[in-house]
Amino acid sequence: MADDPVADDGAPAVTVGEVDTSSPPFLAACRGEPVPYTPVWFMRQAGRSLPEYRAQRGPGSILDAVRDPALAAELTLQPLRRYEVDAAVLFSDIVVPLTGFGVDVAPGTGPVVEKPFREEADLDRLQVTPVPFVVETVRLLTRELRVPLIGFAGGPFTLASYLVEGGPSQGYALTKTLMWSEPRLWAALVGRLAEIALSSLRDQVKAGVAAVQIFESWGGALSPADYRRHVLPALRAVLDGLAPLGVPRVVFGVGAGELLSSFAEAGADVVGVDWRVPLDVARARVGPGVALQGNLDPTACLAPWSVLAGEARGVLARAARARVGEGGHVFNLGHGVLPNTDPDQLARLAELVHTETAQS
Amino acid sequence: MADDPVADDGAPAVTVGEVDTSSPPFLAACRGEPVPYTPVWFMRQAGRSLPEYRAQRGPGSILDAVRDPALAAELTLQPLRRYEVDAAVLFSDIVVPLTGFGVDVAPGTGPVVEKPFREEADLDRLQVTPVPFVVETVRLLTRELRVPLIGFAGGPFTLASYLVEGGPSQGYALTKTLMWSEPRLWAALVGRLAEIALSSLRDQVKAGVAAVQIFESWGGALSPADYRRHVLPALRAVLDGLAPLGVPRVVFGVGAGELLSSFAEAGADVVGVDWRVPLDVARARVGPGVALQGNLDPTACLAPWSVLAGEARGVLARAARARVGEGGHVFNLGHGVLPNTDPDQLARLAELVHTETAQS
Repeated sequence: MADDPVADDGAPAVTVGEVDTSSPPFLAACRGEPVPYTPVWFMRQAGRSLPEYRAQRGPGSILDAVRDPALAAELTLQPLRRYEVDAAVLFSDIVVPLTGFGVDVAPGTGPVVEKPFREEADLDRLQVTPVPFVVETVRLLTRELRVPLIGFAGGPFTLASYLVEGGPSQGYALTKTLMWSEPRLWAALVGRLAEIALSSLRDQVKAGVAAVQIFESWGGALSPADYRRHVLPALRAVLDGLAPLGVPRVVFGVGAGELLSSFAEAGADVVGVDWRVPLDVARARVGPGVALQGNLDPTACLAPWSVLAGEARGVLARAARARVGEGGHVFNLGHGVLPNTDPDQLARLAELVHTETAQS
Repeated sequence: MADDPVADDGAPAVTVGEVDTSSPPFLAACRGEPVPYTPVWFMRQAGRSLPEYRAQRGPGSILDAVRDPALAAELTLQPLRRYEVDAAVLFSDIVVPLTGFGVDVAPGTGPVVEKPFREEADLDRLQVTPVPFVVETVRLLTRELRVPLIGFAGGPFTLASYLVEGGPSQGYALTKTLMWSEPRLWAALVGRLAEIALSSLRDQVKAGVAAVQIFESWGGALSPADYRRHVLPALRAVLDGLAPLGVPRVVFGVGAGELLSSFAEAGADVVGVDWRVPLDVARARVGPGVALQGNLDPTACLAPWSVLAGEARGVLARAARARVGEGGHVFNLGHGVLPNTDPDQLARLAELVHTETAQS
């Protein structure tokens, strides 16, 4: 990380304007404090887009790599050797705390569940169980890292959808039908998933993660009214439970433009925005006092550099127009890095974000 | 259609309040005029959810059925024997006018293109060509029907995505990359697709359809800025070209909540809204003077009747709150009828909408 301009433990803190240079820019932006430049990281920055990742991972379930702390730590660090990113994100998977339920991750498919959730008795298979290998990975990383480490968990709807559908889904028909038809069982399910996520995130924070993100990736499949009634209380339970720990709490969903205000209302400090909602529009939906993260279309990284640069500048301009650049914007993609992304594009992108937002 | 309360050619027009009972409620609602009750139809009301459809269709491409006017007319009529719907929708497919390009529809997959669109020379394969069998189907139907017939075409982005990707897509990477990297070629492509859609819709109107819907189904994959820059001019060309014909023009996309204002700006008389955007929120986005269509989650039709009724009442309440019920709301699902929907649920749903909105 010789090329990392963010933190150098040996250097004295220099005051730039009002910026507290002892605070990592990513955390400052999450808290709405002044930053020396807009911080940036990329969802799925570790992963299949990196040749060194493909070389190390080999075939088999992602869970094999997650269960090996030395390997998981190495995979977490790989993107930091390429990109000037302002945060590392733990190499793990949202289904890891659910493995007692019999959840695996099939290469090329995603989470698969042998015996999907159907009835109250299935709650017995969903218990809060510590995941020592994740804690160990966090410990290994916090010794190495010069930027904040982001831990994460799945959101209640997203996790529930995998358990009920038995895997990825287009329309979430089984999940929604359970939610509508058996609201008590549903509430018990998402309540249990909230406990599991909270316990996992607490363990991650205690071991050293500096911020957490809740991937409510598929929540946008619900109408806002349904999300508020059937899921938001569980999301709030996770966020409330984390509050005493004092780490920034990010909530992100894709296609969740109509849920941004619900995420903020539930207690998110930072709301992740996919590329469909312009940041100034997102600002109007979440109100003041919440930071925004995003929101470049990840597909733009496949286009020529001039196109990518133009799209990135568009995001930065929207952020400035929304005054979210004043400490309240973390640059990111609007969804994960696509597997066929050229890493050099992301390296240039991180540099562009830093250079063009630097406060002189 | 003995159970169809909408139109009875032999009965004198009765004035109910301010309602002009000589005007079909569907057309009146599209035009923002008073209606005796909220009209309703269902996207994909003809299709795989009906046993009589499955019995008639057999295997093979949907295009085989579309090319047979007597069969296509029969499939169009089937749902009207079951449901008190206020409109029929032509049994066809958005790729029909593109068959000269080599587009087929594979059962269970969707549109597939043998040689995808890659370069300027491919424009030669995209020509405006009359589709006589569709015109003939419309003629057969208008003789039979007592409710308005809706014709349709694909939106410019949606059609382009099939041609460029070669079939359905998750992320539209090839399409977006072409759009961003070769904006002139892209503009020529969507311009040509607009001409083809306009020609097809003109022919349908001349043959007797009373309203048209443009399925810009996948437009929501773009940011609003990209949609406005790269697609909206082509959409406007279609809508402007239709204006002299005087039929209501509906534009619909799924996951297109951020594009609703663009659809209205392009000239839509009616904007279709999926279930993610509450109708009162949609009203705020499109402004006054545009009717709204939607927006029940189609998955709700798989739930028990009490759940479905509750969700439908929620839509009607939102419509009333947005004052879109005053002549400016057409009840529909927020996307097509799911294949495993019980037709009896839709029959009860249509009846509920009529009963609960009847102006006494």
